[in-house]
Amino acid sequence: MRVVDFLRALRDGEPLSAADLRTFVSGVAAGTIPDYQATAFLMAVFLKGLSDELTVALTLAMRDSGSVLDLADIPGIKVDKHSTGGVGDKLSLPLAPLVAACGVPIPMISGRGLGHTGGTLDKLEAIPGFRVDLATERFKALVRRIGVCLIGQTGDIAPADKKLYALRDVTATVESVPLITASILSKKLAEGIDALVLDVKVGRGAFMKTEKDARRLAKSLVAVGTGAGLKVRALLTRMEEPLGRMIGNALEVRESIDILRGCGPKDTTELTFALGVEMLLLGKKATNAKAARTMLEAAVRSGAGLAKLEAIIEAQHGDPKVVADPERLPTARQRTPVGAANKGYLKAIDSFALGLAAMRLGAGRSKAEDEIDPAVGIELLHQVGDPVAKNEPMAVIHHNQPADVDAVRAAFSIAPRPGRRMPLVIDRLG
Amino acid sequence: MRVVDFLRALRDGEPLSAADLRTFVSGVAAGTIPDYQATAFLMAVFLKGLSDELTVALTLAMRDSGSVLDLADIPGIKVDKHSTGGVGDKLSLPLAPLVAACGVPIPMISGRGLGHTGGTLDKLEAIPGFRVDLATERFKALVRRIGVCLIGQTGDIAPADKKLYALRDVTATVESVPLITASILSKKLAEGIDALVLDVKVGRGAFMKTEKDARRLAKSLVAVGTGAGLKVRALLTRMEEPLGRMIGNALEVRESIDILRGCGPKDTTELTFALGVEMLLLGKKATNAKAARTMLEAAVRSGAGLAKLEAIIEAQHGDPKVVADPERLPTARQRTPVGAANKGYLKAIDSFALGLAAMRLGAGRSKAEDEIDPAVGIELLHQVGDPVAKNEPMAVIHHNQPADVDAVRAAFSIAPRPGRRMPLVIDRLG
Repeated sequence: MRVVDFLRALRDGEPLSAADLRTFVSGVAAGTIPDYQATAFLMAVFLKGLSDELTVALTLAMRDSGSVLDLADIPGIKVDKHSTGGVGDKLSLPLAPLVAACGVPIPMISGRGLGHTGGTLDKLEAIPGFRVDLATERFKALVRRIGVCLIGQTGDIAPADKKLYALRDVTATVESVPLITASILSKKLAEGIDALVLDVKVGRGAFMKTEKDARRLAKSLVAVGTGAGLKVRALLTRMEEPLGRMIGNALEVRESIDILRGCGPKDTTELTFALGVEMLLLGKKATNAKAARTMLEAAVRSGAGLAKLEAIIEAQHGDPKVVADPERLPTARQRTPVGAANKGYLKAIDSFALGLAAMRLGAGRSKAEDEIDPAVGIELLHQVGDPVAKNEPMAVIHHNQPADVDAVRAAFSIAPRPGRRMPLVIDRLG
Repeated sequence: MRVVDFLRALRDGEPLSAADLRTFVSGVAAGTIPDYQATAFLMAVFLKGLSDELTVALTLAMRDSGSVLDLADIPGIKVDKHSTGGVGDKLSLPLAPLVAACGVPIPMISGRGLGHTGGTLDKLEAIPGFRVDLATERFKALVRRIGVCLIGQTGDIAPADKKLYALRDVTATVESVPLITASILSKKLAEGIDALVLDVKVGRGAFMKTEKDARRLAKSLVAVGTGAGLKVRALLTRMEEPLGRMIGNALEVRESIDILRGCGPKDTTELTFALGVEMLLLGKKATNAKAARTMLEAAVRSGAGLAKLEAIIEAQHGDPKVVADPERLPTARQRTPVGAANKGYLKAIDSFALGLAAMRLGAGRSKAEDEIDPAVGIELLHQVGDPVAKNEPMAVIHHNQPADVDAVRAAFSIAPRPGRRMPLVIDRLG
């Protein structure tokens, strides 16, 4: 089929063959189909949608545009977790070692932060010496030896996704469920995993602002992931206020260590367990949620999870002593408390505003080339529902440059009555 | 507004400002906005549409991407005619001299043929020596001196249209009413005309196959042309069978001379008058259709139209003697009659099939680079409704290479009863 006939059929909502779609995507990846035809394709998909079946074909074609890891010779069901991104979402850091400590191999390939959300790689790199750019063979060796490894996407993982994402970014075709689905899953499938737990976030700090949109994405991820041969489970989780107490890279490593020590904030601890339960179930290390939960709690109590984190850090050239002594992590020169403007109850904390504020401090990037300051960020002293006195500190800004205290203060809404805290997990799909 | 925000608003059907649209199109024309954003724009316009108001802005931006002729110092209301293209549609050739002979200045910039339809420039170039590549100043001088000039689009007329058209062609975004409207009108507006008569064709030999689509295009052309400051009238005309008796460049020049002599086929003569009436009315040389028609008939009878054609040919370096002696036009070496397969009445003549057959003989182009053979084509001996005997010639193929007689024969449907001939002019808009 000629490219123009392919685009015409897509445009008119006529049936397309999976083979034609794969040929098209391969051509885009190889550069034999020019960008101007790729973007016409992207806009047509954005406006006309794409069936789950064709999204599977798109996903597989994107996966196959680069190298696909073969982990078949590592025993066990390989499981990964992916979050659609939120503010203070450091859960990969406690989750990967904790679930690995329970015997599930975790080959985790993560991304960097952009905009108001952080990225797992940036958080890991806040640990002095930690390397995320390991070669594939080393990655496989570590998954085999210690059961878990956390690295960044190499250049040859799903290059079609890289290319299409860059084009989506400049053509207003980012927020398309089939395109998001294919982007997420193509990279995860290239890891050679067997099963995937998805944390689909919804709310002001998330990519999807409404439950309806988030649910559509979660359903698509489950259907397409399953169609592509993965076992998939998705949790729909709330992202209105920031997750946990810390926003910023080294600060989030601290909180992750706290979670593994059993003294983390209630919300991040609970979500770590909720996601961990799904990973253990998919990894067939537990037959029911209760048993899985018990295993995770035991791995915290015994220190097995913490030890696994230490092993990861050591194997990936980081300073393993940060686990016992988090003071070895980078710290900011200045700490500025943010007092409550008036007396009352914390009704809401705007995670989007705090994510942007943290980014401006240097904890994140407004564009991909920006450098990260691992030490800076925002520490929350209160959560929604807490009473506060006038001028009582609600947060502490950790910074190395002048901070916009008012912007941080404005993210906290104080009301005469306590706000209602909603459960974090909204639904479970797949 | 950033390009990506502009595309997002377009994509979401949110209001766009005419200024932003003009900036976008200027950027595309200048090359500061890359093709991959232009094609996302084209696909979004294709799928979401564009208001008449914004199509005016698009049209003006495309016009202003190149040079715009200023004919203000030529007295009179400058009028042009544009046809959306059909098979055997040679009407510009008799129409321009005839209307000019009645005193309306006609600055006509035409195109070349592609696919199954011919182009005015190719027909003119069938006249030995005829030049369509005159410089702007010479073009203006001729419109002033003899009242009419027919040239091709120069490189600096609406370059944005050239660029966008090439991108539409490879992204399945050709058949979009606002994009077609802007493409046609931007070039016509660049001629510096005051009024425009449009011949919007509908049927199997036309670009628009259904009356509904053709009517939508005609309405859009009238609304947008008017919005851009032109006086516009559109005729919706039938293009099922070929127009007139001749298909092919020199053959169509012959038929045009016949029309100006008063001995042309009934259908092309009538349509020439119908379009000429509108041009005289817009040019304010007649106050009503009847008076306009009388003027045109007089210009045929007196030979004024024919003399004007002779003057055009002479001024544009062609051999003016072809008017008195059409045998001077190029002729094909072979003439092959096409006999009726059986006895009956001509029920239909497939103009699309004959247009393609003529193209394959060399009368047209399958791609822009193809060379034209001016001599070849198809001469129809019968029209719909005529009785034919078995083996009676229905057409003559004029060719210099082996001809596919069966393909031409297959374009004629013969039935036991005569087909109904429908009136050529379906409606009049504007």
